[in-house]
Amino acid sequence: MVQRRLRIGVAGLGRAFSLMLPTFLRDPRVQLVAACDPRDEARKQFAADFGARTYADVAALADDPDVEVIYVASPHQFHARHTELAATKGKHVLVEKPMALGAADCDRMIAACRAAKVHLIVGHCHSFDTPYLRTRELIGRGNFGAVKMIQAVNYTDYLYRPRRPEELMTAEGGGAVFSQAAHQVDIVRLLAGSRAVRLRASVGGWDPSRPTEGAYSALIWFESGAYASLSYNGYGHFNSDEWTGWIGEMGERTSPDGYGAARRRLATLASMDGEAKLKSAGTYGGSAYKPPSAAEDEPPRLHQHFGPVIVSCERADLRPLPDSIVVYGDQQRETLPLPSPAVPRAEVIDELYGAVVDGQVPLHDGEWAKGTLEICLAILKSNEAGADVML
Amino acid sequence: MVQRRLRIGVAGLGRAFSLMLPTFLRDPRVQLVAACDPRDEARKQFAADFGARTYADVAALADDPDVEVIYVASPHQFHARHTELAATKGKHVLVEKPMALGAADCDRMIAACRAAKVHLIVGHCHSFDTPYLRTRELIGRGNFGAVKMIQAVNYTDYLYRPRRPEELMTAEGGGAVFSQAAHQVDIVRLLAGSRAVRLRASVGGWDPSRPTEGAYSALIWFESGAYASLSYNGYGHFNSDEWTGWIGEMGERTSPDGYGAARRRLATLASMDGEAKLKSAGTYGGSAYKPPSAAEDEPPRLHQHFGPVIVSCERADLRPLPDSIVVYGDQQRETLPLPSPAVPRAEVIDELYGAVVDGQVPLHDGEWAKGTLEICLAILKSNEAGADVML
Repeated sequence: MVQRRLRIGVAGLGRAFSLMLPTFLRDPRVQLVAACDPRDEARKQFAADFGARTYADVAALADDPDVEVIYVASPHQFHARHTELAATKGKHVLVEKPMALGAADCDRMIAACRAAKVHLIVGHCHSFDTPYLRTRELIGRGNFGAVKMIQAVNYTDYLYRPRRPEELMTAEGGGAVFSQAAHQVDIVRLLAGSRAVRLRASVGGWDPSRPTEGAYSALIWFESGAYASLSYNGYGHFNSDEWTGWIGEMGERTSPDGYGAARRRLATLASMDGEAKLKSAGTYGGSAYKPPSAAEDEPPRLHQHFGPVIVSCERADLRPLPDSIVVYGDQQRETLPLPSPAVPRAEVIDELYGAVVDGQVPLHDGEWAKGTLEICLAILKSNEAGADVML
Repeated sequence: MVQRRLRIGVAGLGRAFSLMLPTFLRDPRVQLVAACDPRDEARKQFAADFGARTYADVAALADDPDVEVIYVASPHQFHARHTELAATKGKHVLVEKPMALGAADCDRMIAACRAAKVHLIVGHCHSFDTPYLRTRELIGRGNFGAVKMIQAVNYTDYLYRPRRPEELMTAEGGGAVFSQAAHQVDIVRLLAGSRAVRLRASVGGWDPSRPTEGAYSALIWFESGAYASLSYNGYGHFNSDEWTGWIGEMGERTSPDGYGAARRRLATLASMDGEAKLKSAGTYGGSAYKPPSAAEDEPPRLHQHFGPVIVSCERADLRPLPDSIVVYGDQQRETLPLPSPAVPRAEVIDELYGAVVDGQVPLHDGEWAKGTLEICLAILKSNEAGADVML
């Protein structure tokens, strides 16, 4: 029996698409049939790679009758409009995180997809990663008691990766809260298994040349009585991969030897304009773009992750890691190995395919992702107001 | 030239004293000349070990004309009264942390020592540990810019070590906030180098057989604009020594192999009465007491510590570790080795001797320690009130 393949049209051939491309290439449940992007070189590359149709704008892509699902991977500020365009034409939508920049946009997206009777799934987000999903399942079995406390910490070089100017402006959806808390908050919500009810946070921005927030810490309280402490620092100094066995966010082997690479690379550039060009050159279709390797001798990747996480239940701590879940119980410590993924981020296709083809209810739907965005917005608000924000 | 030795009288031969004993034995700047304790067996052991005078109560110890300094190591709830007794008799005071259980008690202690013109030093506390003191010095030189964010995390088996009943009652000074936040808060204050101005916290207690809080998370804001995120979990599951090279709190080499030892030991006991006896038996003079080893073949200890700490300055992250300070700068990562300590906790004697003999101003004086206690009390209050506490 030949498996039915979902026909995907890509709206936006930028960095998010580059990171999903290995999934689309290797997962037999999907195929890329069309794309749109304002950059001519990206469209040419896509046409060459996939023998597929390309368009200059999303409206034209949404009119393509062969497209079943539109993957909205345009810059954050366009997610709402592009999702509405897709839904209006009866296409299912997979939209990148963050879902949008405000709750009202989320509501419009949810309403548009509901009216058109199409599925809306938000991702990739690291809460799709198998170690977190399996940890949630283990907790759900009840043997460890209720979740009481969650600790999530992540130190990266996020702020010094090449950026377009708006990615360094919080008001336009840039900065660590919109881009990075979207992952960490989503993971913590998944693991807590309960509705977040209040939040207190502090936000840090201390490099005037990157004028957005690069760090935050937050306390989140859940309806169940559990609480979580989250911290993120993207200033490119300490690297918390050291606490996950030197495995990087994408499941790749990392090393302390590459120290400072992001800053060194940026330092070679004269201007923001040069930086945007560097980002563009390294993006799909750009002059410095490297396609994902399909070589047999590529070292197998482990699961993706978003920094050290410890879930404390009444009778055990659980640590999701890129290759295992460690259960620290009352009597013993046990390591539950996780097989390496055959296809990276296959969990996104699991949910998309499960919803569209098999009629399963997705976890990462619009309502879920709106909840995460509201918490991200509350991080910014609590920092400004100097007080708790009720959710 | 023979060094002048400070003559110390010990008030309370319990666990705190056991932990300071290696310091008193090895540091040539001090000698133990007298002690008091309600337990007959502890007094006998002390008399035999030191050929020194012993008393049943603090008043009698304070009357001993040979004593220059009284080390107040009695249970928390007696610190204030015993400090006053000592000061009234003109003795300098080294009092264990937490300084007291309320700010009013701290004020009485400070006033009594001021009136008597004697020094009041509060410790040992892990903020005396060389890695933190040197980190503060490095930051003070200004090369890394201002402190912006501090992360402090500690996962231990604190709650399952043998306890007297009052150590499991918050109202009597038991629990993780009084006993453990006292360390972590003090370290964070030292590293921030600025006055704490507000705080938000959550406290966790989830083992009914240990009816006090075993965990907390807190956000602290400083006058300088820096903020800190602190988390502590004493429920004996994950052990954060894993993130400090398997070096334990006392600078000893630890290992994942001893997993669950504290809980297993407790499980052999039938009752709280049995637990208090176990604690007593293992304390100085008790039937199961093991004196500190002075053997030449003992593996050298590294510096003491209180869990992973990362200080983020504008241009570097600094990580104080038991054997080094790692500086993660903009361009490179540098490890500054710290020689192993010849005498554990010699830093306490540095301050005590410096103040009493050399007239230096101590860092850990009464006002300083009161500031830490106020933050610990604010952690409990913020959790109850569900709001920020202004400091």
